[in-house]
Amino acid sequence: MTTTINGDLLIGASAQHGSETAFRAIDPATGLAIEPAFGAANLDDVARACTLAQQAFDTYRDTALEQRAMFLEQIAQNILDLGPQLIERAMQESGLPQARLEGERGRTVGQLRLFAKVVRDGRWLGTALDSALPERTPPRPDLRLRKIALGPVVVFGASNFPLAFSVAGGDTASALAAGCPVIVKAHGAHPGTSELVGKAIQAAVAASGLPEGVFSLLHGDGRTIGQALVTNAAIKAVGFTGSRQGGMALVRAAAQRAEPIPVYAEMSSINPMFMLPDAMAQGAAKIGAGFVDSLVLGSGQFCTNPGLVIALEGAALDTFRAAADTALQGKTGTTMLTPGIHSAFNDGVNKLGKAAGVSLLARGQNGTTACAGQAALFETDAANFLANPALEDEIFGAASLIVRCSDIAQFKQIAEHLDGQLTATMFLTEADRDAAQALLPALERKAGRILINGFPTGVEVSHAMVHGGPFPATSDSRSTSVGASAIDRFLRPVSYQDLPAYLLPAALQDANPLGLWRVRDGELTQA
Amino acid sequence: MTTTINGDLLIGASAQHGSETAFRAIDPATGLAIEPAFGAANLDDVARACTLAQQAFDTYRDTALEQRAMFLEQIAQNILDLGPQLIERAMQESGLPQARLEGERGRTVGQLRLFAKVVRDGRWLGTALDSALPERTPPRPDLRLRKIALGPVVVFGASNFPLAFSVAGGDTASALAAGCPVIVKAHGAHPGTSELVGKAIQAAVAASGLPEGVFSLLHGDGRTIGQALVTNAAIKAVGFTGSRQGGMALVRAAAQRAEPIPVYAEMSSINPMFMLPDAMAQGAAKIGAGFVDSLVLGSGQFCTNPGLVIALEGAALDTFRAAADTALQGKTGTTMLTPGIHSAFNDGVNKLGKAAGVSLLARGQNGTTACAGQAALFETDAANFLANPALEDEIFGAASLIVRCSDIAQFKQIAEHLDGQLTATMFLTEADRDAAQALLPALERKAGRILINGFPTGVEVSHAMVHGGPFPATSDSRSTSVGASAIDRFLRPVSYQDLPAYLLPAALQDANPLGLWRVRDGELTQA
Repeated sequence: MTTTINGDLLIGASAQHGSETAFRAIDPATGLAIEPAFGAANLDDVARACTLAQQAFDTYRDTALEQRAMFLEQIAQNILDLGPQLIERAMQESGLPQARLEGERGRTVGQLRLFAKVVRDGRWLGTALDSALPERTPPRPDLRLRKIALGPVVVFGASNFPLAFSVAGGDTASALAAGCPVIVKAHGAHPGTSELVGKAIQAAVAASGLPEGVFSLLHGDGRTIGQALVTNAAIKAVGFTGSRQGGMALVRAAAQRAEPIPVYAEMSSINPMFMLPDAMAQGAAKIGAGFVDSLVLGSGQFCTNPGLVIALEGAALDTFRAAADTALQGKTGTTMLTPGIHSAFNDGVNKLGKAAGVSLLARGQNGTTACAGQAALFETDAANFLANPALEDEIFGAASLIVRCSDIAQFKQIAEHLDGQLTATMFLTEADRDAAQALLPALERKAGRILINGFPTGVEVSHAMVHGGPFPATSDSRSTSVGASAIDRFLRPVSYQDLPAYLLPAALQDANPLGLWRVRDGELTQA
Repeated sequence: MTTTINGDLLIGASAQHGSETAFRAIDPATGLAIEPAFGAANLDDVARACTLAQQAFDTYRDTALEQRAMFLEQIAQNILDLGPQLIERAMQESGLPQARLEGERGRTVGQLRLFAKVVRDGRWLGTALDSALPERTPPRPDLRLRKIALGPVVVFGASNFPLAFSVAGGDTASALAAGCPVIVKAHGAHPGTSELVGKAIQAAVAASGLPEGVFSLLHGDGRTIGQALVTNAAIKAVGFTGSRQGGMALVRAAAQRAEPIPVYAEMSSINPMFMLPDAMAQGAAKIGAGFVDSLVLGSGQFCTNPGLVIALEGAALDTFRAAADTALQGKTGTTMLTPGIHSAFNDGVNKLGKAAGVSLLARGQNGTTACAGQAALFETDAANFLANPALEDEIFGAASLIVRCSDIAQFKQIAEHLDGQLTATMFLTEADRDAAQALLPALERKAGRILINGFPTGVEVSHAMVHGGPFPATSDSRSTSVGASAIDRFLRPVSYQDLPAYLLPAALQDANPLGLWRVRDGELTQA
């Protein structure tokens, strides 16, 4: 069964064509427009979606854990039921290959199912109960704490994961899991994919008997529709993955509201890899080849792309360089997500190539499609890197910079000099132990995830994942946008003092009807 | 043994007189200055305290849980060892009575000991372990998550709790518990109390063998020294309790840094009390008398002072008013904290008395000291309250406003109209159940703590307490500044991928040497 793509906005239960500027998706492999035309939302559409979300909030946040979990599972099933049509449309709109998008669909569905489990487990409720002590001076009241949802959330779809970080991606899944209605501002690069997934969610809302305002999908420009969404009084939090400029615009808009709200923007990271000496002595060739595989994966369009390599100069680094050069010869540029991203990549590569003290080491083969990204590997020395903060700017795509160090002490200097990062990596053997132990505290301060002897491009969706990190990697280092803990972003604690049993939420009742783990008078118990 | 108060700054292990403007504490009961003179810090002092804190950070955050817990307990003991001198100086500087300050000292010491327990329990580490799945396609790496401290924290002492919300108060205790060095900007109203408590902490740092930068105490103006602290690159978070104006100035300064940082500002709340009809029919006189006791407690200088009463007009409200009036006749104004606070209270009372549609219902007796706060109770109707947002402004001190409603539907309207609050209260009987259930969701959205049949002025330090709430009650509703969860404000998650055993922190080692509760492959276990 094929779902018709009408180019519509989905506002609550309705589907309608937006009245503002019409636009079409562009196939980045050909540069040609794809039918149909989409109509952007106007400010009334924004207001309506926000009002519906606000109206839905109290009902939705009060759904039973099982009902909410089944709703998330229904969304997953509806996405799978879209079948090959979803993959084909996403391929057309993103230039990404079939296998990658099928994998990404699996990740998206798995993510929704993980959050269904998270919802059922209920640890996110953070429940705590302190017994009344009426005989104490002064008497202690009965106090019970649970977390509740923040309120309606706006999610900005990302270009680089048209499924897993977009309409039904990690931000949406975790916000819905927390009990927040979600309004998605679709990314303009994959509006058809967005409509298909949006309809899958819309159908799940209806099938689950939930109020229509639990989900809406709007098309339009970030500077108008995006800002209008973020500044609407009904909205209580924002999830975003994209550029630093785009993220900071939302952070500023949210901070200037009469009621400021949190913005979780995942923005910019170059993911340094520190190559410790013995690891290089033992395996520079293999590491160099593996590095190139990670660098060109998905045309380098990952938040966790390895954009910086720190190594000691010498024979091992020469081996690494030679291996990387050889590997790059075998890598033909693949289609980037949009003409704009392709052009920004080329600008970034050209600028870095002209920077003082930076030399081009190797390039991949050029591709044949309109937006093929030709991989580039540059080199500089530590003194030059430390003196030029611009060398730390992210180039979105398959570009990386090797920093040659004359001694291991410069590794620490570079680690301390770096901005916040999503990831930091060390390649090491046990002979590198002392150097690794000396470097680790700095990496903990700088990054959300620390990897040993691996490449940062894989981001597991699980309980122990952190896809976050200090500014400017994200706007809020206290959280993650991938993995089970992402739900915590959309919650706040409420304490209940001396409530009669008939007013207590199930999570806080004496009998523990939900079977939750709770902190009872300071001790964790499931009783 | 008496500790000499020298008027010094405490920067790391040193004590020295600040070179900037000299000032003395003022006894608010007499308006007279108290010796000795204090010297304010200069910008070099700020830089030095920040550098020491930064240097101490990696060592301090890596202390064993037991060592850190014992350090907190040592601070508590050192504060007790100050004996009557601390209470006498705090009485002089704050105008608060002895019994209140002795109680507050108990609260402060209890708070430090609670955080020692929290540190030992280690649940704040939020540990999660996902096992490697090498056979899966793609293979899953070994992932382990723990939370680490954010970095050095600046704490602004509050005027209204010279012990429990000041130098060694809840913000300091929770930040130290998290592993963050702390720099306190002392409140200018109680510099001597601050120096005594600061020396207690300084001695505990030395006795515990910790790096001196774990704690510093600076005197000076919020607009210069405070801003310099918040904008220093070494500082990673801020705790503040005070006015909305002061809090928002810090929020703005922190947001404009090259690296924005979180500010936990607890600012402004009028703590509405909704008096449901049957509760009033059954006990208006008793509730009215109890309300006045809560209103005048500590001269009304509590963040949770009951500043708004919502009730149906009619005979029961008349009884409540009469009881409140009678009770107020018996309340003589007590000394407020500072001449500035006293004068702002009088201004607020005069302004509210002149507001359209507002009438004065009753006043307490005037006191005899220089800064005695004369309690005031006003009244308006729901339509007027809803039409004039200025009637929602907090008056810091013993002032409250009764809002007369013509029907119960106006309760909900008022609840929806209100800004965010620290607390919201309902007085009810089981006959009020339907009205209470209808009101509860709105109160959950508006407040951090919901009370039934009690007064909000008592704030228990325990696991299930929330002293927080939506803006403008605080700048960050996702947290609390009182109770065990306050530690969460100063933490961020870090994920460790494929670390060799010799690099893994104890909290994440296979054998679980700390005996922590951990989420292992999705399930909570102490194994």
